[in-house]
Amino acid sequence: MKADILIRDCTILPMSNKEYIENGTIAIDNDKIVFIGKPTSASNIQAEKQIQAKNMVAMPGLINSHTHVAMTLFRGIAEDQPLDLWLKKFIWPLEAKLKPNDVYAGALLGCLEVIKGGTTCFADIYFHEDMVARAVCESGLRSALAEGIIEGGSRFLGKVMLKRNVNFAKRFRGYADGRITTMLGPHAAYSCSKELLIKVCEEANRLDAGLHVHLAESKVNFPSSRKKRELSEVEFLDSIGFFRRHLLAAHCIHLSSTDRRILSRHGVNVVHVPVANMKLGLGAAKIKDLMDLGVNVCLGTDGPASNNSLDMFETIKVAALLQKLIYKSPLAVSAYDALKMATINGAKALGQERNTGSLEVGKKADLILIDFSKPHLKPVHNVYANLVFSAKASDVDTVIVDGEILMENRHVKILDENDVMENAEKTAIDLLSR
Amino acid sequence: MKADILIRDCTILPMSNKEYIENGTIAIDNDKIVFIGKPTSASNIQAEKQIQAKNMVAMPGLINSHTHVAMTLFRGIAEDQPLDLWLKKFIWPLEAKLKPNDVYAGALLGCLEVIKGGTTCFADIYFHEDMVARAVCESGLRSALAEGIIEGGSRFLGKVMLKRNVNFAKRFRGYADGRITTMLGPHAAYSCSKELLIKVCEEANRLDAGLHVHLAESKVNFPSSRKKRELSEVEFLDSIGFFRRHLLAAHCIHLSSTDRRILSRHGVNVVHVPVANMKLGLGAAKIKDLMDLGVNVCLGTDGPASNNSLDMFETIKVAALLQKLIYKSPLAVSAYDALKMATINGAKALGQERNTGSLEVGKKADLILIDFSKPHLKPVHNVYANLVFSAKASDVDTVIVDGEILMENRHVKILDENDVMENAEKTAIDLLSR
Repeated sequence: MKADILIRDCTILPMSNKEYIENGTIAIDNDKIVFIGKPTSASNIQAEKQIQAKNMVAMPGLINSHTHVAMTLFRGIAEDQPLDLWLKKFIWPLEAKLKPNDVYAGALLGCLEVIKGGTTCFADIYFHEDMVARAVCESGLRSALAEGIIEGGSRFLGKVMLKRNVNFAKRFRGYADGRITTMLGPHAAYSCSKELLIKVCEEANRLDAGLHVHLAESKVNFPSSRKKRELSEVEFLDSIGFFRRHLLAAHCIHLSSTDRRILSRHGVNVVHVPVANMKLGLGAAKIKDLMDLGVNVCLGTDGPASNNSLDMFETIKVAALLQKLIYKSPLAVSAYDALKMATINGAKALGQERNTGSLEVGKKADLILIDFSKPHLKPVHNVYANLVFSAKASDVDTVIVDGEILMENRHVKILDENDVMENAEKTAIDLLSR
Repeated sequence: MKADILIRDCTILPMSNKEYIENGTIAIDNDKIVFIGKPTSASNIQAEKQIQAKNMVAMPGLINSHTHVAMTLFRGIAEDQPLDLWLKKFIWPLEAKLKPNDVYAGALLGCLEVIKGGTTCFADIYFHEDMVARAVCESGLRSALAEGIIEGGSRFLGKVMLKRNVNFAKRFRGYADGRITTMLGPHAAYSCSKELLIKVCEEANRLDAGLHVHLAESKVNFPSSRKKRELSEVEFLDSIGFFRRHLLAAHCIHLSSTDRRILSRHGVNVVHVPVANMKLGLGAAKIKDLMDLGVNVCLGTDGPASNNSLDMFETIKVAALLQKLIYKSPLAVSAYDALKMATINGAKALGQERNTGSLEVGKKADLILIDFSKPHLKPVHNVYANLVFSAKASDVDTVIVDGEILMENRHVKILDENDVMENAEKTAIDLLSR
């Protein structure tokens, strides 16, 4: 058998089940995984590029299921603020000034950070999303992108944004050799009118597209007029048929048990965003309750303005810690389950489980090698525990997406790191001076 | 002026106050800082060793105020267990098998991890603590060490351990050119009898030594016989005069407002241990309440068996996140205050504020350089926010303790990394086979 890349002598965690392979071999041909297993049965595989991965762990690339990568530009800009002020006084006025090239510069910095932290795929929702698509295309990553829609009381604006949204979804579906898929992006139930949300659903039906939305993030933001009708945010969205489409719902902090059952019944994909939720003092989503109801839960960092990082290893650890804390039980969410949330569950949530999220023959080659020859990863009594509770973004040695090596020995091959950083810094300074 | 080391062109955060110096210079002579400021006034300083630190931030080395570094051996060994089972079924039986050389191997691995993460000083409590002292001595770090005392119902054992404790404190006080100070280490109110705790206090008075204790970590462990007398753990310890000595009290989760006032009145130093507390599902200490009462709060990781890391950058971020979560306010504990907890507050808690914890002329040269030329640290709108919420242990480039460079360009000079890792791994395997 011929392959493009042969990875040798690593511990392989396929994440399709809990068993793992020691001293294993992975063969990649073109964009796909063509072999995983013990080297004995791989002895006849020829490959020009060989990666000696002794002391490394191979696993599926991480999937960040809710972020706004271009917000790297605003990292650390508005600290110690409540969510409504944070949005209205700092973030939204700055966002109003954003030009397409700003979003491109910020998104490219975000993509660089994403690669260096072992994330191979992310779901993004923002403005000028075509510029995010451009950054994703250039950085070699996989992603599910949506242009955001915020109506903010203006029917006209809502209409314009919906049209832009639909155009984006059509134009960029399957872009970058199929690495980019698209969704529609109604920001939230509190920032779009009922009429607009219904129209978004109609368009999603027409396009056969999924929806990416912020849900039950804050008690404050859901308008009191709707509360008077005694419907929760989830019940309101359910009442307009919003959950009939494939849905990626970020946050899901303030849910009643009825809300949770509605999400479960409709197969809504919940993105848990522990770090940003804690940082903004919003609360802790009860993920274990959702998992017990069979809800597919995945993980996201949110944008770097409210985290302030795109580090999925950190998010995995904090997610597990937070559930153990709020259920007052060290048994709530195991290391393996936390890692599933950041891999295969994310792939399902993005409608990408046939392509990515686990290491299986026939799937796209989206994988990372983690260097375990570090003091903080010794000894290895439990490889899952070491990955979730001890490994760092900086332990990621190699990143492969769609069969292409984006980073090797921590050297990013596909982007010029200094150029990307300099351009983003200049852009941030210029944006503040406007 | 002559100096041994001159660090140029860095951003200096002294942490003695919130102002910072851009493009600053630090001069170190022998073990002390002899100059901090703008280079204009440093132009006449001569030094053989020059460190060009453009794009770096210089700050005091981090202080980990509660850990058991030798427990690296048990990293990931007993996941998803409640505290009492975790201790009784897994950790204590393994600890009973520990030989001095095991503790040395584990402690040296811990010291290596500590250096690589930018921690320059730690407070440790464990068994065979003379072996921890040996590891600290060889690794160049600063530390406050205590031999642990667990009586566990046996008066005889308590007596033996107290004697060992006192001998250790006497022998290693001022060891390693003064880098090691000692404390007495009664494990907790629930694991030592009243009589023993009183004896420990008498010995501490005699030695003029501080005490390092676990306090209000779990509701389960404080014996019901004492509860019947309707005294909380804090009230019980107060009733026997335990708080009259300099005290380092780790955890402090389950406190009443009366307990908090008692700790404040006696100037008890509280070590917040957010990661391990979350991981074991024990609860969240209300640090802001303690700070509002003027209590000196510092930070610790706990041992790598319950964290599972010695990463103080992670602990700083999680500490800030956790307070914002439990007070439902993004204003609870600012980035600057979180960084103070990990530096100057830690120095105070260890009785070391005249030596370390801030960058000031005349203090010991315990400092770290953090490389800000990384994608996840760009742009820099707020250097404190970037350090607390975006920086990683792996961004630490250079570590200096007592004027000696322990790590430069992430290369640890004082230890052989591979030897240390191999020896600890072998030891862990051997320990499990006994």
